[in-house]
Amino acid sequence: MISKDCQNKCLKNNIKIVQKKLVIDTFGNVSLRNHSKVFIKPSGINIHDIMEEDISKVDIYSGQTTSGKKPSSDTPTHLELYRAFPEIGGIVHTHSLYATAWAQAAIPIPCYGTTHADYWQKEVPVTRQLKEEEINGDYEIETGKVIVETLKSLRLSPLDCPGILVSHHGPFTWGASIEDAVKNAELLEYVARLAMITKQINHEANEIDPLLHQRHFSRKHGPNAYYGQTK
Amino acid sequence: MISKDCQNKCLKNNIKIVQKKLVIDTFGNVSLRNHSKVFIKPSGINIHDIMEEDISKVDIYSGQTTSGKKPSSDTPTHLELYRAFPEIGGIVHTHSLYATAWAQAAIPIPCYGTTHADYWQKEVPVTRQLKEEEINGDYEIETGKVIVETLKSLRLSPLDCPGILVSHHGPFTWGASIEDAVKNAELLEYVARLAMITKQINHEANEIDPLLHQRHFSRKHGPNAYYGQTK
Amino acid sequence: MISKDCQNKCLKNNIKIVQKKLVIDTFGNVSLRNHSKVFIKPSGINIHDIMEEDISKVDIYSGQTTSGKKPSSDTPTHLELYRAFPEIGGIVHTHSLYATAWAQAAIPIPCYGTTHADYWQKEVPVTRQLKEEEINGDYEIETGKVIVETLKSLRLSPLDCPGILVSHHGPFTWGASIEDAVKNAELLEYVARLAMITKQINHEANEIDPLLHQRHFSRKHGPNAYYGQTK
Amino acid sequence: MISKDCQNKCLKNNIKIVQKKLVIDTFGNVSLRNHSKVFIKPSGINIHDIMEEDISKVDIYSGQTTSGKKPSSDTPTHLELYRAFPEIGGIVHTHSLYATAWAQAAIPIPCYGTTHADYWQKEVPVTRQLKEEEINGDYEIETGKVIVETLKSLRLSPLDCPGILVSHHGPFTWGASIEDAVKNAELLEYVARLAMITKQINHEANEIDPLLHQRHFSRKHGPNAYYGQTK
Repeated sequence: MISKDCQNKCLKNNIKIVQKKLVIDTFGNVSLRNHSKVFIKPSGINIHDIMEEDISKVDIYSGQTTSGKKPSSDTPTHLELYRAFPEIGGIVHTHSLYATAWAQAAIPIPCYGTTHADYWQKEVPVTRQLKEEEINGDYEIETGKVIVETLKSLRLSPLDCPGILVSHHGPFTWGASIEDAVKNAELLEYVARLAMITKQINHEANEIDPLLHQRHFSRKHGPNAYYGQTK
Repeated sequence: MISKDCQNKCLKNNIKIVQKKLVIDTFGNVSLRNHSKVFIKPSGINIHDIMEEDISKVDIYSGQTTSGKKPSSDTPTHLELYRAFPEIGGIVHTHSLYATAWAQAAIPIPCYGTTHADYWQKEVPVTRQLKEEEINGDYEIETGKVIVETLKSLRLSPLDCPGILVSHHGPFTWGASIEDAVKNAELLEYVARLAMITKQINHEANEIDPLLHQRHFSRKHGPNAYYGQTK
Repeated sequence: MISKDCQNKCLKNNIKIVQKKLVIDTFGNVSLRNHSKVFIKPSGINIHDIMEEDISKVDIYSGQTTSGKKPSSDTPTHLELYRAFPEIGGIVHTHSLYATAWAQAAIPIPCYGTTHADYWQKEVPVTRQLKEEEINGDYEIETGKVIVETLKSLRLSPLDCPGILVSHHGPFTWGASIEDAVKNAELLEYVARLAMITKQINHEANEIDPLLHQRHFSRKHGPNAYYGQTK
Repeated sequence: MISKDCQNKCLKNNIKIVQKKLVIDTFGNVSLRNHSKVFIKPSGINIHDIMEEDISKVDIYSGQTTSGKKPSSDTPTHLELYRAFPEIGGIVHTHSLYATAWAQAAIPIPCYGTTHADYWQKEVPVTRQLKEEEINGDYEIETGKVIVETLKSLRLSPLDCPGILVSHHGPFTWGASIEDAVKNAELLEYVARLAMITKQINHEANEIDPLLHQRHFSRKHGPNAYYGQTK
């Protein structure tokens, strides 16, 4: 893709998370990867106040900004994830209400039903808390590292676990494309809200039967998928 | 009705459940029956991206698609219900928040008040969990069968119990017409939300007096109904 | 007022409770009194489908409909209240979420703060449950009678207690005018929601200091009121 | 600023808190300070019914209204805060749902995550209850005094703690400008809602690590801030 298309896609998807009420104020940021470059929302700016050329373009390896405004303060987290997971093409960070509340509660979201099972192969994990030297060091890089560490320790591929909760902070989601990353941010918020209400109704609710979980996940993913028009 | 009218009604009512916020993403599906044919939403598609002629037309008995795109993966569930209950003309499946949360909690919705009693003659039932062979077999047909089994074991007619919760999955509603089925999907979500809030306020809330339940249900249904303009 | 103005006001305020999301489907009804006549929503009708002349006009004493469509099935409840309380000019019945949930929980809404204290001089009462002979008799008249009984037994004037919860049913509010009755329906829903959230945060939350309650209520009501522009 | 600009800003920001659903009915008021004058919403009025010149202009020291309609009954509270804190340029009082519920629960909002830490350096405090002589005396002045007393006893500067809960009443927020005060009102509501949901998910949720709290607060505030475009 040429830079102009990347800027346009990045801007449009940053606007989308505002319209879908996943962020308020200047919170949240969406990025996409194009070869060795990342396009991301500028720092501390109302997305409705900027134009395509203001979108920050950053080199994945050097971290240098090559065009646009000063990038989101969370850019080093995005870069860390792009470097660790070549299969992802877009990343979204929000402070959406229910996903953030689960992150604040520091509890993984249990899979209570098929809505969750359609998109996450297991529960939605929560990272460990950062250590003192991580908080006081390169905080945003360490945030990326602890996400990677969590997925690897759970032996989950990023496309089977398209989002995670950062402890006492909030959700990060991703996908093969920026559009998928945004869809996963919306679904994570929905799944988080469903799970919270489920717990309110029944504090001892059981998680979904693993067989039913696997059946639903594989309806939409993998070689035996039969959901949708594409097969 | 001619096919074109059925396609139009089916499309319009699939759009309605999006507008009423009963579904997000490509979740959910609405169907109507016309003699031996069912018209239903195509699989995995954004309803705003399709036209009337894309609506899938499926034979109730053979399960063959005779026109339109590949039908919803939940079509076998709809067909099972149409075959078991000749009195229903429309079916709706959503992942609406509160009804889905009760389904995930695997608890029937108790009748706490007249809003519920106006439409369901008893509590809103929840199915048993599917067995291993049902999940790994014809899963969508088995989902239909467990709904029929639940109604029959409770000796409820489908029009006195116009919707049910499928355990760890979500709600299905129906009605004499597709419009009634959609209205019942909206009412089930409202009743589910009311019941959840009621439990939060008073964990030991009593269910409605059965006499008051019956009085309200029969204001709207049956030979002594006196609600509305039609009598 | 001439009949046409009454019909117009009644229609407009019935539309308002739909717009304010206090009712769904064909639930809810708003009425106003003009001398010995009551103007009220017709039974079981979508308010957007009717015209001014369809509004039902009913005689307060005889209960006879003198123009318009068949009136709301709750009309006898409204008439009972108008006969008991000459100071009220409008009545609203909704199934709004939080007020209905408190009614279903059959618990009076405690006064936790000044938002409540600005409009209700005490807690929001809940009626006793109806008896078998009341449910099976003139049910809608008995609903009016139990509201009157509750206010009288608590020695509350209807303008100091502009709304009540009918056990396992929902809220009724009223006011000197139909506009006040609608405003009180909206405020009751807000107060009900605030109280529910307050209880979730602190199950042992204290009610407001009675002195602060009285101070706020009398800022807006009675001879020493100093809120607003009119004094 | 000339008076006309102040009136315009005051009107616009009072409209904003209605649009952001932080108030219903005639509740809530926003003011700004210009030298020795305060511009504030008139008492008991629907903000959409007034014009710029109706905005009340009040002298901070004498409390006299020099133009516009009769000012909000909460004006003495605003004046008290302006007199105590020269660094604040705008004040907002709302009855927003979740912040008011925490005020009614009379519990400070614990800091569970970075959303809160980005704006408040500590928990969101709640005032003590007013005493009998304060309620029956100059109630609105005493409300201002107890806010000042709370901040001072906690050794918090108003810009490090841009909002507070008044016990059994509701939130007051402020900022260097009227725009910041409104933004803080919106953020306080969001933080209050997040914290409530967090508690529902995990009644024993831990507060944020103080190091992470400090890191996030200082990303946005103070000499080492690196968030946004302005550095």
